[in-house]
Amino acid sequence: MPTPTSADKFSFGLWTMGWTARDQFGLATRPALDPVESIRKLKDLGAWGFTFHDNDVVPFGASAADRDKILGQLTDVVDETGLVVEMVTTDTFSQPVFKDGAFTSNDRGVRRYGLRKVLENVDLAGELGARIFVMWGGREGTEYDSSKDLHAALDRYAEGIDTVASYIKSKGYALKIALEPKPNEPRGNIFLPSIGHAIAFISRLEHGDIVGVNPETGHEQMATLNYTHGLAEAIWCEKLFHIDLNGQHGPMYDQDLVFGHGDLISAFFTVDLLENGFPGKPGAYEGARHFDYKPSRTEHVQGQWDSAAANMEMYLMLKERAVAFRADPAVQEALEVAGVTGLSVPTMAAGETIEQLLADRTAYEDFDVDRAGERNYGFVQLHQLALRHLMGFAVG
Amino acid sequence: MPTPTSADKFSFGLWTMGWTARDQFGLATRPALDPVESIRKLKDLGAWGFTFHDNDVVPFGASAADRDKILGQLTDVVDETGLVVEMVTTDTFSQPVFKDGAFTSNDRGVRRYGLRKVLENVDLAGELGARIFVMWGGREGTEYDSSKDLHAALDRYAEGIDTVASYIKSKGYALKIALEPKPNEPRGNIFLPSIGHAIAFISRLEHGDIVGVNPETGHEQMATLNYTHGLAEAIWCEKLFHIDLNGQHGPMYDQDLVFGHGDLISAFFTVDLLENGFPGKPGAYEGARHFDYKPSRTEHVQGQWDSAAANMEMYLMLKERAVAFRADPAVQEALEVAGVTGLSVPTMAAGETIEQLLADRTAYEDFDVDRAGERNYGFVQLHQLALRHLMGFAVG
Amino acid sequence: MPTPTSADKFSFGLWTMGWTARDQFGLATRPALDPVESIRKLKDLGAWGFTFHDNDVVPFGASAADRDKILGQLTDVVDETGLVVEMVTTDTFSQPVFKDGAFTSNDRGVRRYGLRKVLENVDLAGELGARIFVMWGGREGTEYDSSKDLHAALDRYAEGIDTVASYIKSKGYALKIALEPKPNEPRGNIFLPSIGHAIAFISRLEHGDIVGVNPETGHEQMATLNYTHGLAEAIWCEKLFHIDLNGQHGPMYDQDLVFGHGDLISAFFTVDLLENGFPGKPGAYEGARHFDYKPSRTEHVQGQWDSAAANMEMYLMLKERAVAFRADPAVQEALEVAGVTGLSVPTMAAGETIEQLLADRTAYEDFDVDRAGERNYGFVQLHQLALRHLMGFAVG
Amino acid sequence: MPTPTSADKFSFGLWTMGWTARDQFGLATRPALDPVESIRKLKDLGAWGFTFHDNDVVPFGASAADRDKILGQLTDVVDETGLVVEMVTTDTFSQPVFKDGAFTSNDRGVRRYGLRKVLENVDLAGELGARIFVMWGGREGTEYDSSKDLHAALDRYAEGIDTVASYIKSKGYALKIALEPKPNEPRGNIFLPSIGHAIAFISRLEHGDIVGVNPETGHEQMATLNYTHGLAEAIWCEKLFHIDLNGQHGPMYDQDLVFGHGDLISAFFTVDLLENGFPGKPGAYEGARHFDYKPSRTEHVQGQWDSAAANMEMYLMLKERAVAFRADPAVQEALEVAGVTGLSVPTMAAGETIEQLLADRTAYEDFDVDRAGERNYGFVQLHQLALRHLMGFAVG
Repeated sequence: MPTPTSADKFSFGLWTMGWTARDQFGLATRPALDPVESIRKLKDLGAWGFTFHDNDVVPFGASAADRDKILGQLTDVVDETGLVVEMVTTDTFSQPVFKDGAFTSNDRGVRRYGLRKVLENVDLAGELGARIFVMWGGREGTEYDSSKDLHAALDRYAEGIDTVASYIKSKGYALKIALEPKPNEPRGNIFLPSIGHAIAFISRLEHGDIVGVNPETGHEQMATLNYTHGLAEAIWCEKLFHIDLNGQHGPMYDQDLVFGHGDLISAFFTVDLLENGFPGKPGAYEGARHFDYKPSRTEHVQGQWDSAAANMEMYLMLKERAVAFRADPAVQEALEVAGVTGLSVPTMAAGETIEQLLADRTAYEDFDVDRAGERNYGFVQLHQLALRHLMGFAVG
Repeated sequence: MPTPTSADKFSFGLWTMGWTARDQFGLATRPALDPVESIRKLKDLGAWGFTFHDNDVVPFGASAADRDKILGQLTDVVDETGLVVEMVTTDTFSQPVFKDGAFTSNDRGVRRYGLRKVLENVDLAGELGARIFVMWGGREGTEYDSSKDLHAALDRYAEGIDTVASYIKSKGYALKIALEPKPNEPRGNIFLPSIGHAIAFISRLEHGDIVGVNPETGHEQMATLNYTHGLAEAIWCEKLFHIDLNGQHGPMYDQDLVFGHGDLISAFFTVDLLENGFPGKPGAYEGARHFDYKPSRTEHVQGQWDSAAANMEMYLMLKERAVAFRADPAVQEALEVAGVTGLSVPTMAAGETIEQLLADRTAYEDFDVDRAGERNYGFVQLHQLALRHLMGFAVG
Repeated sequence: MPTPTSADKFSFGLWTMGWTARDQFGLATRPALDPVESIRKLKDLGAWGFTFHDNDVVPFGASAADRDKILGQLTDVVDETGLVVEMVTTDTFSQPVFKDGAFTSNDRGVRRYGLRKVLENVDLAGELGARIFVMWGGREGTEYDSSKDLHAALDRYAEGIDTVASYIKSKGYALKIALEPKPNEPRGNIFLPSIGHAIAFISRLEHGDIVGVNPETGHEQMATLNYTHGLAEAIWCEKLFHIDLNGQHGPMYDQDLVFGHGDLISAFFTVDLLENGFPGKPGAYEGARHFDYKPSRTEHVQGQWDSAAANMEMYLMLKERAVAFRADPAVQEALEVAGVTGLSVPTMAAGETIEQLLADRTAYEDFDVDRAGERNYGFVQLHQLALRHLMGFAVG
Repeated sequence: MPTPTSADKFSFGLWTMGWTARDQFGLATRPALDPVESIRKLKDLGAWGFTFHDNDVVPFGASAADRDKILGQLTDVVDETGLVVEMVTTDTFSQPVFKDGAFTSNDRGVRRYGLRKVLENVDLAGELGARIFVMWGGREGTEYDSSKDLHAALDRYAEGIDTVASYIKSKGYALKIALEPKPNEPRGNIFLPSIGHAIAFISRLEHGDIVGVNPETGHEQMATLNYTHGLAEAIWCEKLFHIDLNGQHGPMYDQDLVFGHGDLISAFFTVDLLENGFPGKPGAYEGARHFDYKPSRTEHVQGQWDSAAANMEMYLMLKERAVAFRADPAVQEALEVAGVTGLSVPTMAAGETIEQLLADRTAYEDFDVDRAGERNYGFVQLHQLALRHLMGFAVG
């Protein structure tokens, strides 16, 4: 089986395998893991980095002394293991104070408190050398449309993000903000519910140049959206700053399964995109391959680590299949037949004006629409080739 | 019952009540309606405007002479009835030639043909004095992720839209383009699947200043998204150019029910937004109230017109309830208690710097998080007030 | 506003308004309510009954002495208030021991333990005079299809239910079992995911005569299913033993909103069915109108009780509208036109044999299919009449 | 690549690869296929049987002479090719006359006409030697809950099915009826929306002994349900009479993709069930492996046949992987560890009474719940083993 190395740039949130499995309907089934031990274990498994929410390591309301002591231990284990703190994220959703959100809470005192908590967390991220600051506004939203002034909510959200971005710039941190979209849960409707909504929002920010997105596989799939298409649009908009890989079975509660344990074909094309890039624009995604998953509640400590390893193994198996898929001459021919490679050719000729297009009778008046309508694109056969590769039937 | 007048700005696509009810699993159950007669009938029912796809009135491949004759009849009935051609849209999805899309087809000949067809349609819209040109790229998409170069597809899509926008500017038409998002059907995944994805795309266009969105109720709901929230973000981005109102029951096939016959509470808040605006930014949406629905296949001619009238009646009933809701002193008090009105107050004080915020101990160190966490926002009670109004139990 | 009385047969689970609002992503925002105080408060609000899980009142693992003391208090407050313990349910999902289910756990020791816990709970229900014993097997299921022997799981489930039913009979309790279907959450796939699956299962039981279903509004809607249709099939199968009313917005996490705060039109037709019965088979549902909802996490104590009251007010407002709808002569005429009333007429004439049907040329050879295909059923107009009533525009 | 033989029992509906690709939003992109030629081609591809709706081969309203001529040609090609007519199905959804359903239409004339059409079709199926008669009541349902008497609708549905079943028995045909559930499309809510609802309905029929279900992969997945779980319950109820295999991406329009081109992991476990049976009850499903899919609209004639072949190849690839999965000693060990094999052991000991269970202190009072709660079931690791097999990484 393929095994991970630090070159694979795999990273894990400490809250992922560390989840104690307390859920909406039941108590914890596992003890809390010690972060320091978890980092060592991640190193052993082949991970390259780790990430955390402020309150994953420093309890909410801890004293400055406790905070410094804990962060000292964290720095020590980073030095010891060589693991990278590639991203830090912020918890503005667990505490009762944030029950109506942080930046968009109807309570201005909460908004100011939330902003202060985030700014403090930015300092933490900056000091630890993280490059990405993920913000999931899981409580920014509504259950009832009357409960918010929706325009003002976006104003306040923008004010908050711009304030944080401005602070990052003023401090000279090498941090970029990555907003994490999610359609619902724990709120009935979360603001910025998809990759698209988040990038549209960012396009209106004053400091949007250092703000992008952190799309999570399952979050897009909860809204029936195609994750790989979403990543592609984010890349096209130059806003794919980070990713959260996991598994999900369509619109239901947020499952956070192991990557590839949900929609496998979609996971194959996600890895294909991250590793191979686009046919007309090859090249790998450069960022971390970050997993945001949860070991099932039926698993105990052994299962926590088995499932962490399974994420990396899934990714590497899919990578091996995706690389072979693109390298296969039969696939390359099928891509030609399907016209995939031709889509990079602009519709207008180089230098062609609209007037010239309008005068080109071959483009319209004399174009054989019937024949064009009878083209066999061969998409099903191309997909079948992909499945042969995915299932290991096209090896050698 | 409230009855419509032209001041209500109701408009209908000719393809809506005119649908012959041929669907995926069955034959047509109704005869085709004559467009001229339909326009007269819409006038009688109280509509203000109508809209159409090029091929709703001019058959695909019609001769120039036939086209001119048909458009002459259309102009005559517009003069006769005083109805407004407020929007024209384009059919790049019905014909086999567009089976893999128009602007993003893998076949460059099709892309050029599609562009020409759209440009011709722009002239039609411009000549008829329409102000909005809706583009629904229903065939721009995939069933299989390998069948497209997703980056090149967005390049081609942008090239196409920018070419059309540039042409509109060069001709001096008073037209704006409104892209209509949809997540799927008839393609497995359509590009620009939601309001957010479309606005994100527009933010990267060269001529994006005259490009906005035409969100359809059911299309967002097919992706489990909140339509009213989507409208609010579109308004916040200054991109809500047009709307398509109808009804839908969540993620399934595109139902195109009468407006309000799907999710009624959502429809109430949509009308509330369109008529009342936001609490902190009052004011009505100025554009057409356009219905894009289909009479159920069980209905014959009488049912086609009954259902058209039902859309307007639903809107007016909801408007009456929504206006009363916002005017009710008990509601205004509940909005205060819930903090809704306070969300317009910026989080930072006027002129406050980040340094000043960081120095404000009342904002963080001395903030009473426990007390803030115990606030009763009263959102459920506020929603209950909305439902009393919606159901007519709070009348006078 | 309509106000509830005990004649309305409203009942609440103690775990509903009593939910402390600890969810998957956050801590509790409210203190635990004292059951005794809650029962008094329910009385004041106009409820008729209450229900509970064993562990809602008796902590898991409590001593026999503690149990008796608590139950004594419960009996006292029942006597004091006159509220009815109409149903008791059982918690086989919260504790870690049940993380892979109770009756279908892969661990036989857990299965035996679960059975014992349920039998003990049956005694509690029997002693308290409850008539319904609800069983929600929320942990009976899988995330991964390989993790269960699906056939054996159904065997064990049947063995468990039959054992409980047999025990009820042997003890002479006036209890019926009502299975509560749910498609997913907290398991990826729960066994008996819908009303239909549960009744199909019951049809194979040995003691199925005292086993029926307890359908919950939101649970069916999480699977995109029509709750009212489901109730109708359950009634048709003579298996609607109890109901759980609440609100939900389609396939996402289990929202447990106030009844009517989700899909309002669906709620209208649910109440119409419960109060009016079927056009051809009038008559009200006789059981409790039981609410299984959760006050939103943004609400504090006041909101807990406001939301409880909102459930009853919603039901009563809907009842008033539904009764007026059926009584309206215009509606009755529309039902005639639509053929709704004619559906009670058997397709075969009284005493008609298949041979006679085959010989009836008017039924087939001479039947005018074209004319039948042109019938205007008028369903949209009928629905519009329903909406006028629902919105209070058809009053008086 | 594995290639099909008649021993694999693959069959196809003539309407599947024969679909001309006319959809809700567009015209046909392909010519109609000649049924006779299609059957020959299916033979060449390795199929074992074929199926059809009456109107797939005999046009609606054809004369008796035309019908006989066409059926003669069909019989000839059956003799020539040796293909089996394993199932016949009936079209009660295409024609306008059935726009409100057949057996549950509000129009009694339509109900009688529908019954006659189906009885005629039963004769056709009986004469051709088919063993299964599939009934998909695609138009039996509603868009609006007021448009049906839901109880009467089930009465009429039952009357219709019982009449057909009674007729089959009276004629001595070796036919069984298989009802095909679907949640929605083309109706907003179809009656008998899932496997469970259909079996519950059947349990109340007079002639239910020869009535079972024909579950379609995509139909269950449109309601977010697990297809393999549904098959398992149908088998447990002894009602799995036939299957329709295809692919789907969750709740959206009915995609009818190639089998395995939707949710691949689910398809793997479906094949595992059909080929290997249950761990405690091994044995293959004996019926046809029937595909009910549609070639994508982008495909022309070559793609129609490529896609037909892809269904069989997918099944065979999955079968190879599923057989190896169950044979792998590492998997067998993991199944033991997970307790899967132990689920066949009854919860009660042989002959154990409830009294004895109640007296067994080891089952309850002395049971170590903490230890049982700490069991590591290892489900994630077991699933990872399945994925290694599915992806061909566990080969030899």
